[in-house]
Amino acid sequence: MGTKKRVAAVRKNLWSGLKPGAANRSELSPIVFLARAAEIYPQRVAVVHGATRINYAQFYERAKRLASALEQRGVKRGDVVAAMLPNVPALLDAHYGVPMAGAVLNAINTRLDAETVAYILAHGEAKVFITDRVYAGVVGPALKKLKKKPLVIDVDDPLYTGPGERLGSVEYEKFIGGGNPAFKWSLPRSESDPIALNYTSGTTGRPKGVVYHHRGTFLESLGNIVAWAMPTHPVYLWTLPMFHCNGWCYPWSVTAMAGTHVCLRAVDPAQIFPMIVEHGVSHMCGAPTVLTMLVAAPEQQRRQFTQAVHIMTGGSPPPAKVIKGMEELGFTVLHIYGMTELQGPSTFCAVQDSWGGLSQEDRAVQMARQGVRYQVVEGHIVADPKSCKPVKKDGQAMGEILVQGNTVMLGYLKDPKATREAFHGGWMHTGDLAVWHPGNYIEIKDRKKDVIISGGENISSVEVEIALYKHPSTALAAVVARPDEKWGETPCAFVQLKPGASATEEDFIKWCRDNLAKFKVPKKVVFGDLPTTATGKIQKYVLRERAREL
Amino acid sequence: MGTKKRVAAVRKNLWSGLKPGAANRSELSPIVFLARAAEIYPQRVAVVHGATRINYAQFYERAKRLASALEQRGVKRGDVVAAMLPNVPALLDAHYGVPMAGAVLNAINTRLDAETVAYILAHGEAKVFITDRVYAGVVGPALKKLKKKPLVIDVDDPLYTGPGERLGSVEYEKFIGGGNPAFKWSLPRSESDPIALNYTSGTTGRPKGVVYHHRGTFLESLGNIVAWAMPTHPVYLWTLPMFHCNGWCYPWSVTAMAGTHVCLRAVDPAQIFPMIVEHGVSHMCGAPTVLTMLVAAPEQQRRQFTQAVHIMTGGSPPPAKVIKGMEELGFTVLHIYGMTELQGPSTFCAVQDSWGGLSQEDRAVQMARQGVRYQVVEGHIVADPKSCKPVKKDGQAMGEILVQGNTVMLGYLKDPKATREAFHGGWMHTGDLAVWHPGNYIEIKDRKKDVIISGGENISSVEVEIALYKHPSTALAAVVARPDEKWGETPCAFVQLKPGASATEEDFIKWCRDNLAKFKVPKKVVFGDLPTTATGKIQKYVLRERAREL
Repeated sequence: MGTKKRVAAVRKNLWSGLKPGAANRSELSPIVFLARAAEIYPQRVAVVHGATRINYAQFYERAKRLASALEQRGVKRGDVVAAMLPNVPALLDAHYGVPMAGAVLNAINTRLDAETVAYILAHGEAKVFITDRVYAGVVGPALKKLKKKPLVIDVDDPLYTGPGERLGSVEYEKFIGGGNPAFKWSLPRSESDPIALNYTSGTTGRPKGVVYHHRGTFLESLGNIVAWAMPTHPVYLWTLPMFHCNGWCYPWSVTAMAGTHVCLRAVDPAQIFPMIVEHGVSHMCGAPTVLTMLVAAPEQQRRQFTQAVHIMTGGSPPPAKVIKGMEELGFTVLHIYGMTELQGPSTFCAVQDSWGGLSQEDRAVQMARQGVRYQVVEGHIVADPKSCKPVKKDGQAMGEILVQGNTVMLGYLKDPKATREAFHGGWMHTGDLAVWHPGNYIEIKDRKKDVIISGGENISSVEVEIALYKHPSTALAAVVARPDEKWGETPCAFVQLKPGASATEEDFIKWCRDNLAKFKVPKKVVFGDLPTTATGKIQKYVLRERAREL
Repeated sequence: MGTKKRVAAVRKNLWSGLKPGAANRSELSPIVFLARAAEIYPQRVAVVHGATRINYAQFYERAKRLASALEQRGVKRGDVVAAMLPNVPALLDAHYGVPMAGAVLNAINTRLDAETVAYILAHGEAKVFITDRVYAGVVGPALKKLKKKPLVIDVDDPLYTGPGERLGSVEYEKFIGGGNPAFKWSLPRSESDPIALNYTSGTTGRPKGVVYHHRGTFLESLGNIVAWAMPTHPVYLWTLPMFHCNGWCYPWSVTAMAGTHVCLRAVDPAQIFPMIVEHGVSHMCGAPTVLTMLVAAPEQQRRQFTQAVHIMTGGSPPPAKVIKGMEELGFTVLHIYGMTELQGPSTFCAVQDSWGGLSQEDRAVQMARQGVRYQVVEGHIVADPKSCKPVKKDGQAMGEILVQGNTVMLGYLKDPKATREAFHGGWMHTGDLAVWHPGNYIEIKDRKKDVIISGGENISSVEVEIALYKHPSTALAAVVARPDEKWGETPCAFVQLKPGASATEEDFIKWCRDNLAKFKVPKKVVFGDLPTTATGKIQKYVLRERAREL
């Protein structure tokens, strides 16, 4: 035996037999956090909903009852349980009860139309569908379109007194009342098993079903805590829709820290400010539009609060003046970047000591960058999408944001081609175009599909939007490509003016000329309310259609 | 095809093809934290050592140089690199550089004798041995005993000016100077690969080599952060020996939060208090003896500090009056429980809101309990060690603490029998006997081997020690079994009196009669200094021998 072979044999010998087994390996899953919180803080308030208080013992019991009731109705490991619900206790229950039954939670965007809801239910093959009366006008027609009907369960929330009939065969509280509170749940067989299914917004054709896994959501849940340095017992206000990336995994993060979930059926500053004061809210999340709404809230809706309130925002970059406005209201803003395929936030704009010396405005510019990767994210680069080679960190070179690691989705449901394309070269391709700053901070310049190519020049729609946002009359702004015979495409601006503000197309065009290179100046400016998605993103595909018809 | 089979086929179909791959699966390892901190905070102070400041860019470079230099000397994946070092920068480097080379770090207890050190080096087959001049008196003779000599590297720390020659062929700084600062390290092939090797204290025969894995230490590192709710940029003073469970994984946790490691060659209150003030220390760890030392420090050594200083303590239960004393000095104490086999802390005594209403003394009694499991620990029970069935949570029934989850060691090196026994029934058997309180808090009553069986009755040595500690003259106390013809065993007390205190054997026996059941009262009380291990644990096996000879 040669030396090399002998050395290898010795090494093999040294560690041989040391394999993970029952004592030292358990499958990672965020569902463990609820069992633990209930064990240690049974009497602590876990959920606030109107006048209702659910403590951790009760929250855990509700989740087990749900799991048990689902199993009684024939739900099996790997089955899909869909939910179209506002941020109510039932949806928190579902984040634990559904995977405790081995099933997969599909939380559906509540602003979708009947046809899309029907498509999602059919595509995901949902066996059960939990819904709220408030969506009866959409859910009713959606169910009619389905060949195979799921078991429909109605949430009839006493806090909701508006119209909408019950569509199902059983009310949610009654349904879980029939479940066993001592249900023996188990961990997934593999931590790579699916835990949730979240459909993309479908701006480019049919929505795609993004499959989340236990391992990834467990790590993302811890990643949220360490990135935000979340303390024990946070009081978390649900201003972010829980159907959006499973509420960025906060149903699990907040529970891991034995915090209090404060439910909220609809985002309304008139409710949010008093709730921050009443419940001592410490943390909340939301798209920049939520921040804009809070900053724009009339004086009589605002409340003073004495505690620190941390707000995490993402989905689109928060305009610097919105960050400034939030800080003036007493909020501490953390900007994150993520997407459905990343199971929630993937980068955050970590604050540097040196920013302490900047003006509030300059700091807001820094804070509007997408920032640096979470502790639990292995790779986060700006790169050439074909070769996957990183671009220079010079704040100039554009590339696509590529992500690698355990918090990346398992793939798209029933779409191996899209999955393969998204994972080209062993990286998740986000479709976001960005530059990389010398200090490693990523800054998004555009969605790949939103870049405007005019006379062969790339124009970042975001750059033009930033210029428009600087105009004092702008409330919301978006820029899309408009087909042009001569230039191929030209930028077309859509502007929603502030209440009471008046400005003309000429004013804006002049403003842009003063602030942008000539070829980037919009050829058209259209005024009116901008269409947004359920998560506050401006629906550029709608604007693109409008621009084509101008 | 029957319905059941068809359903199974559909389900299989639904998720089929969705497997983890390059984009969405990376092996968990704590070594990633350094690369990330260097990326984001290159200029931040990572390590303080005397007047030396090492920023994160430099710390990362040092680790890569070490990995590269080890590889140049023929260190291969799976080889052991041993280190016998105080808490100096080289040992922090090693926590990253050694695994970056694919090797396994064996940090050796610095208080061991030459024979045991030689045994460990031979047993672990160390290829490289990094040591500090201060230990030359032990390391020199240890090396002489070895048939196969490792490559010996000397740390010649400018902060150490005492005796001790260099024993190796190269000085550490020169060694890493020859390494490549752009070394391309890689993640382990499997997250279940070994990352570290830590020998038990060997109170029952030869020390056992406990093998740590990348997955477990990654999760333990995050577990520390979330259990302690550690903020971003902690300033961590190294009062805990880094050779003890890899410093409870804090070389990785602190770096994950981009904190500052403040090195400390020896635990000395005259240095600790000024360092807390000078560096703004926010966090530190240590055995209860460290706390005792701080509480007992003379007035002229103490310093006032204005920041919150959190101290995590474990290894043995901190006496209530030590907790009280620490709080009076301005520290916030968190009591944890863990052991070498658990890769660091496994439970912590989570504070309950209701304790706010308790007297300082009653709160200290609560805080002296071992508490509840970490968020990252799957199972933590008090159970019958044979059947692994949990005991009642009544604060009375005794059982052994059993642990299950990813933070449990991989096993004992070259000792399949001991590994099998430790993992009996799929649980790690800690050897600690405890009760389980109604609120789920675990309280250790004794080490399994320390229980005294007198006339068929079990006597908890800890219970007798608690009574002894309440005596105003006691500085340290320990109780062990002494062979007795009539009773089989009787309790024998060893007491170290406070400086200047005087008390007789009769005083103590009377004291115990007033505080304990009659059969638990020590038959003998011996006065004198108590022998402690490097980590501050009282060496009961030494006392047991003494008791036999009385």
